[in-house]
Amino acid sequence: MPLPDLMMVRSVLPWLDIAGIGVFAISGALAAARRELTIVTFVFFAAVTGTGGGTLRDLLIGAPVFWIHDNRALAICLLAALAVWVTPRRIWSDQAILWFDGIGLAAYAVFGSWKALAYGVPPLGAAMMGVITACMGGVIRDVLAGEPSILLRPELYVTVAALTAGLFVLLMLLGAPLLPAAGLAALAGFALRALAIVRGIHLPGYRG
Amino acid sequence: MPLPDLMMVRSVLPWLDIAGIGVFAISGALAAARRELTIVTFVFFAAVTGTGGGTLRDLLIGAPVFWIHDNRALAICLLAALAVWVTPRRIWSDQAILWFDGIGLAAYAVFGSWKALAYGVPPLGAAMMGVITACMGGVIRDVLAGEPSILLRPELYVTVAALTAGLFVLLMLLGAPLLPAAGLAALAGFALRALAIVRGIHLPGYRG
Amino acid sequence: MPLPDLMMVRSVLPWLDIAGIGVFAISGALAAARRELTIVTFVFFAAVTGTGGGTLRDLLIGAPVFWIHDNRALAICLLAALAVWVTPRRIWSDQAILWFDGIGLAAYAVFGSWKALAYGVPPLGAAMMGVITACMGGVIRDVLAGEPSILLRPELYVTVAALTAGLFVLLMLLGAPLLPAAGLAALAGFALRALAIVRGIHLPGYRG
Repeated sequence: MPLPDLMMVRSVLPWLDIAGIGVFAISGALAAARRELTIVTFVFFAAVTGTGGGTLRDLLIGAPVFWIHDNRALAICLLAALAVWVTPRRIWSDQAILWFDGIGLAAYAVFGSWKALAYGVPPLGAAMMGVITACMGGVIRDVLAGEPSILLRPELYVTVAALTAGLFVLLMLLGAPLLPAAGLAALAGFALRALAIVRGIHLPGYRG
Repeated sequence: MPLPDLMMVRSVLPWLDIAGIGVFAISGALAAARRELTIVTFVFFAAVTGTGGGTLRDLLIGAPVFWIHDNRALAICLLAALAVWVTPRRIWSDQAILWFDGIGLAAYAVFGSWKALAYGVPPLGAAMMGVITACMGGVIRDVLAGEPSILLRPELYVTVAALTAGLFVLLMLLGAPLLPAAGLAALAGFALRALAIVRGIHLPGYRG
Repeated sequence: MPLPDLMMVRSVLPWLDIAGIGVFAISGALAAARRELTIVTFVFFAAVTGTGGGTLRDLLIGAPVFWIHDNRALAICLLAALAVWVTPRRIWSDQAILWFDGIGLAAYAVFGSWKALAYGVPPLGAAMMGVITACMGGVIRDVLAGEPSILLRPELYVTVAALTAGLFVLLMLLGAPLLPAAGLAALAGFALRALAIVRGIHLPGYRG
């Protein structure tokens, strides 16, 4: 298996990381908007939601937490909060949080698995890392906002993260080149989540 | 004080760790079952609940997070989720979460203190580590499931973790051999929690 | 910029750290009191609330978690819990949690930024560290107690943390001596939070 080297993760595909940070940050700011909070609270929600999943990932795999020594992540969160703040609410439909969360979910499921592989985490753990970190941004946002966790929504969510991360790790195991594998897995994941949001598709629930 | 060496923790008494992971994982899957979630969400709840307390412990004491480089923990969580999924609900009484949580509480209170001692944490901190990590699995599960935290139930819970961890650390300080000390503390802790569940015994609450 | 050296942080101004631990611990014990919990649960809430913000800070900046190898922090939490337990409730007005939380907010916003600077975190990250760790003690307490997060209260809260941490980091950047800078920022922050509690002053909320 060709382990993605960390330099490449940082230089070739930073957009997945930025996408994850930015869209989760927007979803956090939208949660603050729904509760009519202030601009400072917008920034706080954007920063915690945008960086939460990646922070947990870095703590778990023993990497330096990515935003501590690099101001760009916080700058993205600041811009995301301002963007939501200065625009009228009607631009952001009720489902906007879901859509931005969905992009973040797909992006982080791939990027989280990838960084874990780059740190030498074995495949199963790396896939799980993609899942946990992709889902935790939204969970942290919902806990802070006092809303029911997105995990409890009926349509596919954790499943999307699991399939996305699993597909990416599998492609890497099979020797696929990094860039197409990452793009394919992220797009497939987002498409599945989009179907879940639009059509409400879901796995059967436990009926006992 | 004879510090338990890490090799012994890993080889002689892995059952405490496995018991903690497995029963917390089952309690997490049961929380998912109560909300009629899907098989993937079962696995996610099982994994986060089963590994949550130990993950926090490892982060706090600066140990590598135990399940990142060892697939066995995740495999146990997967099996626990499948076990709950394939069995009819009537097998799992309403109190089943409480009982599995209780076993996990006792097992993790001992194992958490033990691993902390093995990493050179002083006695008071080690006991606190047992308490926090034993309680946090259930707290994480309840927060994810949107249920009132188990900490707020009237009967003995944190107290059981504190007495279990305290008894184990005290026995180690007194020079007791590892295996009997661990077994005695875990059994005493589980017995006390069982009494608390069955008889509802509790300390007096604050009345101001 | 004269970086505060870690020795000085530890020796000259330990009172900010102790204040943060102690008053957050009291606010945690008061949350337990409001729910008429037991003495052991008081101690648990006091310990988790008192050490939560600083624990997150240390994990994020890669410092050893401060209370693991030093029993004083846990001892302060124990004393705080006992102090609340043995006193009648009428001493603690309904707003007491807010006031103790406010002192903790100001103290931790300064101390958190300071420790981050001492660990080489750049200014923006250090200020953010002050904000997140100052706010997270209260957030953890509210999540554990099942109450709406203090972040969602209408009057200034995150804003106070941001201004306090920002003022302190700015003063350090301008070359101000450590002790006056810390004292000034903490007092200004507490004064602002006091105004927010008493007068309910707040920034305008998002109206879309």
